[in-house]
Amino acid sequence: MTANRQIVLAQLPGGDHLGPQHFTLNTAEAGTPGEGEVLLKILYVSLDAANRAWMQGATYRSAIEAGDVMAGGALAEVVTSKAAHLAPGDLVFADTGWQEYAVLPARRLAKIPRMEPLTHLLSVYGVAGLTAYHGLLECGAPRAGETVVVSAAAGSVGSIVGQIAKIKGCRVIGIAGGKAKGQLLVDELGFDAVIDYKAENVRKALREAAPNGVDVYFDNTGGDILEAALFNMNTHGRIACCGAVSQYDGAAPPHGPRGVPGLIVTKRLTMRGFIVSDFAEGDAKALKDLQGWVADGSLKVREDVLEGLESLPGALVGLLAGENVGKRMVRVAG
Amino acid sequence: MTANRQIVLAQLPGGDHLGPQHFTLNTAEAGTPGEGEVLLKILYVSLDAANRAWMQGATYRSAIEAGDVMAGGALAEVVTSKAAHLAPGDLVFADTGWQEYAVLPARRLAKIPRMEPLTHLLSVYGVAGLTAYHGLLECGAPRAGETVVVSAAAGSVGSIVGQIAKIKGCRVIGIAGGKAKGQLLVDELGFDAVIDYKAENVRKALREAAPNGVDVYFDNTGGDILEAALFNMNTHGRIACCGAVSQYDGAAPPHGPRGVPGLIVTKRLTMRGFIVSDFAEGDAKALKDLQGWVADGSLKVREDVLEGLESLPGALVGLLAGENVGKRMVRVAG
Repeated sequence: MTANRQIVLAQLPGGDHLGPQHFTLNTAEAGTPGEGEVLLKILYVSLDAANRAWMQGATYRSAIEAGDVMAGGALAEVVTSKAAHLAPGDLVFADTGWQEYAVLPARRLAKIPRMEPLTHLLSVYGVAGLTAYHGLLECGAPRAGETVVVSAAAGSVGSIVGQIAKIKGCRVIGIAGGKAKGQLLVDELGFDAVIDYKAENVRKALREAAPNGVDVYFDNTGGDILEAALFNMNTHGRIACCGAVSQYDGAAPPHGPRGVPGLIVTKRLTMRGFIVSDFAEGDAKALKDLQGWVADGSLKVREDVLEGLESLPGALVGLLAGENVGKRMVRVAG
Repeated sequence: MTANRQIVLAQLPGGDHLGPQHFTLNTAEAGTPGEGEVLLKILYVSLDAANRAWMQGATYRSAIEAGDVMAGGALAEVVTSKAAHLAPGDLVFADTGWQEYAVLPARRLAKIPRMEPLTHLLSVYGVAGLTAYHGLLECGAPRAGETVVVSAAAGSVGSIVGQIAKIKGCRVIGIAGGKAKGQLLVDELGFDAVIDYKAENVRKALREAAPNGVDVYFDNTGGDILEAALFNMNTHGRIACCGAVSQYDGAAPPHGPRGVPGLIVTKRLTMRGFIVSDFAEGDAKALKDLQGWVADGSLKVREDVLEGLESLPGALVGLLAGENVGKRMVRVAG
């Protein structure tokens, strides 16, 4: 039998900050696929703020419980297949959890074409890129000349949102923590302006950076930054609600942002929440556009690849603290 | 010269509850229209929760200042016209303010066909009816079989929203204050269920009244009732943000409802604010539909008509306390 090292969420963090102490390393057996199943070898695990949200309770998926192998999406390779549509060597993206091997039902798995580098399948051509593309274009619906603001702007999704908004002819303001991230967004990714939420009053800084108001706000954070955006929105503005990373790691927020629903009514705003699978029908077009933009250099891909299964807990804790620029992932094998 | 009695907002209420002491009665002269203007005689003044919101600051219109004739929409008759498209005897709807006569530029005024009773021009065929129609159908987009919830359900807009939702084949739950209002909504207007927000825990009562969840919430109140609705929404639910009457009369709310943006993301909700003029292009179709429903008895019109200019301050104070059922207005003349 093949040994399968796993990272288990030994203890739920509850209202505490997530730390390495909540995880343990376990070794099990890799298992054997039954009829209709596949044995997968995990290559790269995707780190996402939503991983932390899943510990708070059921959302669009069931909650993670203490003692479970930590949940998470990964790029994986088929080792053994008992399903007609998948063969050894095929690549798939699946919620394998944090482990070296996983046996999963093949029904919902689709073969992904190989490409170089493989990591792009988790960043610009994966959930991050598709989330940025669909969320901005469907929920934000930016028009050329409008002002687009994105929070967690140096993150995997935000860094792509801002660049797509530039491609669409918008003025783009990023909100991120720290001077270094801001510099990178402006110098390398072409953002027009940045706000350092750790050093500035965001509501005031946004008023100065967007003197004509904000037409589209892509919200990855919720909380005070969402509130600051609400007060700076233009009439008929759109807010794409993608995530609320300010509220995942710690106690549940006692209340929502001021201005809801008052400013939504008086400014006639639309706030729309989404997850990427809502727009799966548009994935083919999205991938074609993203590939074109990467090829012509108008979209730059930032990735943050860490090494080894053991680095997963620290990678997630660090992501929640905002230490990454671009898509964070952990290489487990391959 | 013709005397013109006016109600002046002598003092802004600030964070206090609005009371009769904030108003004074004044007598001025009716005035004479200049080129392009009309002299109007006010027949019925419309009372709206938004009147109170206008005292808090600029919204989609400029704020009302202390010393101003109190602002408000009214059905009025042209007395003298210096504009080609309006003649004496024509009816118009205008922001005349609370007075017997007003001189206004005619440019934005359009003649309204006379009908019996005239009061319907301020209720079902006026701002209230059009707000209910467009807000529910455009922002709420209810489908037959879905569950629709409306707050301030016995008010001018809410009482029509619920009935239109029934016409569209939905299950309708109204939230209103007091047993008598609830009884009326069920017995006379055909609501399927009601919640008395003064006597019940709305979040819990809503869970019981809508065991399959809420697909469309038409929000007239904001605050705790909006929060209760958010927690009961179904995936891909829609919230039409029409007003926030819970927050107009008194101190500014310290924060927004919990669940924003967390529940908006995980349930992929759309919250959309609107004012009736956003949908002016659809008014002709709306009026045709509304007239058809009134004619065939599927839409019952509730009005609450008070008498005399002097009753206006009390009429607004009472409306903010929720004492009316259906559209409240004051007959000034005619």
